[in-house]
Amino acid sequence: IASIKPVYKIAAIPGDGIGAEVTNAALKALDTLSQSSDAFALNVNTLDWSSANYLTRGWYMPPDTWEDELKKHDAIYFGAVGWPTVPDHISLWGMMLPIRNSMNQYVNVRPTRVMRGTKAPLSQLDAKPSDLDWVIIRENSEGEYAGQGGTTHGHANYAVATEVAIFTRVGIERIMRFAFETAKSRPRKKLTMVTKSNAQRHGMVLWDKVFHMVAKEYEGVVESDKMLVDAMTVRMVNKPESLDTIVATNLHADILSDLAAALAGSIGIAPSSNLDPTRSCPSMFEPIHGSAPDIAGKGICNPVGAFWSAAEMVRWLGQGKLDQVADQFMEAIENVTGDPKTRTGDMGGQAKTDEVTDAICREIERIC
Amino acid sequence: IASIKPVYKIAAIPGDGIGAEVTNAALKALDTLSQSSDAFALNVNTLDWSSANYLTRGWYMPPDTWEDELKKHDAIYFGAVGWPTVPDHISLWGMMLPIRNSMNQYVNVRPTRVMRGTKAPLSQLDAKPSDLDWVIIRENSEGEYAGQGGTTHGHANYAVATEVAIFTRVGIERIMRFAFETAKSRPRKKLTMVTKSNAQRHGMVLWDKVFHMVAKEYEGVVESDKMLVDAMTVRMVNKPESLDTIVATNLHADILSDLAAALAGSIGIAPSSNLDPTRSCPSMFEPIHGSAPDIAGKGICNPVGAFWSAAEMVRWLGQGKLDQVADQFMEAIENVTGDPKTRTGDMGGQAKTDEVTDAICREIERIC
Ligand SMILES: CC(C)[C@H](C(=O)O)[C@@H](O)C(=O)O
Ligand SMILES: CC(C)[C@H](C(=O)O)[C@@H](O)C(=O)O
Repeated sequence: IASIKPVYKIAAIPGDGIGAEVTNAALKALDTLSQSSDAFALNVNTLDWSSANYLTRGWYMPPDTWEDELKKHDAIYFGAVGWPTVPDHISLWGMMLPIRNSMNQYVNVRPTRVMRGTKAPLSQLDAKPSDLDWVIIRENSEGEYAGQGGTTHGHANYAVATEVAIFTRVGIERIMRFAFETAKSRPRKKLTMVTKSNAQRHGMVLWDKVFHMVAKEYEGVVESDKMLVDAMTVRMVNKPESLDTIVATNLHADILSDLAAALAGSIGIAPSSNLDPTRSCPSMFEPIHGSAPDIAGKGICNPVGAFWSAAEMVRWLGQGKLDQVADQFMEAIENVTGDPKTRTGDMGGQAKTDEVTDAICREIERIC
Repeated sequence: IASIKPVYKIAAIPGDGIGAEVTNAALKALDTLSQSSDAFALNVNTLDWSSANYLTRGWYMPPDTWEDELKKHDAIYFGAVGWPTVPDHISLWGMMLPIRNSMNQYVNVRPTRVMRGTKAPLSQLDAKPSDLDWVIIRENSEGEYAGQGGTTHGHANYAVATEVAIFTRVGIERIMRFAFETAKSRPRKKLTMVTKSNAQRHGMVLWDKVFHMVAKEYEGVVESDKMLVDAMTVRMVNKPESLDTIVATNLHADILSDLAAALAGSIGIAPSSNLDPTRSCPSMFEPIHGSAPDIAGKGICNPVGAFWSAAEMVRWLGQGKLDQVADQFMEAIENVTGDPKTRTGDMGGQAKTDEVTDAICREIERIC
């Protein structure tokens, strides 16, 4: 009996180093999930955009066609980009950052919590693992990553270089609204907004202003407060239970989300979703870790961040209809991290990437 | 028998909130120290520059004369500035930031270690307290704090604001050299340089370039490496023992030094020195914490960061001749933090600011 299910088209960009290894693992898990489920199927198109190919072809993404190519898909699954043979600002501006910009992915969602089996530095002190359950909403389209600025007298000893951060009312307001809506949807309904408006008195002050404006609309619904980014790191360490949803600029949230992942026990488990909430372009899902040249090729990297990112992709694609499947996927992931035999080195175990991947597939088959 | 000792002129700016309380405590300790010591005396001139006075007078620092006024001193001791009645960017640009800029204080030194008696989150896990012994060298005169940028269409829904970070070869090279010299003077002789040059491709790339240039001169003497600021937070949490001296931009080091203080157990103990290494202007010493309106006026704030900052001031003033006195001051401080009865609330104790201050004075008298 043939079943009829929606088929989503996915562009998979494994990229460099462990990016390719974890993408491979995530695609296996996704394949098992879609086979086990009546609810959806995936049609995966793998794109060989990487630093190695850049060195032979001269481009990361085909110059005239990459935007059209990506737009043929419902979502993008991304591994990692960056390799010692190419300066980092060339590789990142050759691939990941242009996708975030051109695909209108103005929200980057970064949930952090202490997964079963994780040895979180914080949970060793006074805090309980359940105290650390955050979602960081990162502005993903402007600010410190606008790419503007330049260098004058580059080779002279009086060289001057600038980095120009651009903040727009439109950009700030839409991320603020997204953040308040996210906070509203969570049990604790709390939002903390982060800036550095004491020292940075133009764009950051506009952030404050728009925050106060939007906060008024949510009075009595979402409890909100604001923090300076430096003090925020202290609060994350000392009072994790006081935080819930967090919204910050492109750079600040980049830093805070890595810190969050470290405090939760491993950068290897943290996911990220680059979303176009208007759904006019495909959104992109990637683990927050990078290509990790030091451990690449050894088959020992942690695929859990890639699995979690894949689960978020399924949830996003379903627009509410695949929540149960995504929840089952997450349950399978936590069963795997919960078992000492299927943890990689960064989580204190000895399992290989393949073993963790086999385990997740078995769990998915069992649960779904 | 009259003794002859050098008398240093100090401008004390207590400022706002607990800034005033800890300055008061530090001045008492310094007074006791100079009384007990044959090596130096202090002539302290207290300046009433604060947010409360700003509200009545319309200025933080006397507009035409503040620079000349400060330059009459050998050093500046600073409490904290910032109060809920004045927007933070007005207060900070009204006092602290202009001093750093105009007094040529292009280096900000922020040591972090786990003081005796401190409950450091990290030390609870695998790390030993001795693993966390860092000094962060913060660029203090340009970068993201240059103050440049502006707002256009501020009240419209198409407002645009910019923050312009300025990096100069001169500014980068001098901080890099200071950092390498600092690393060279420490037992482990290691330097980690931090940027975000993968996403910020102008000024940050200039940082990388100057770093590599200066690093060559120290080959075989200082072991150096570089990190991205986001990944750096992870390394601080997971591999504290791998770090020694750290150099970073104004904003990055601001964030990392607060995180460092939190990981070492309390932001209340961390000191900072704003240095003009050319000694053409007075340098400024301040605890890294702020004015803390929530606990101000209760007499419960931790004066240890203020003591440590005062010890650094003595060391700086002595140009090598007061190192022993500064070391004794530090020994006294650690005897006080080492005693549960003389710890403030943030360190898990119940002592009042006054009790800690009395204890430090007794210890100084005993040791010196
Ligand atoms: C108060 C603020 C402007 C200041 C800074 O960011 O420089 C403070 O956080 C510090 O670290 O000295
Ligand atoms: C690789 C880098 C440019 C990227 C970023 O800073 O955005 C990464 O750190 C991330 O957080 O996704």
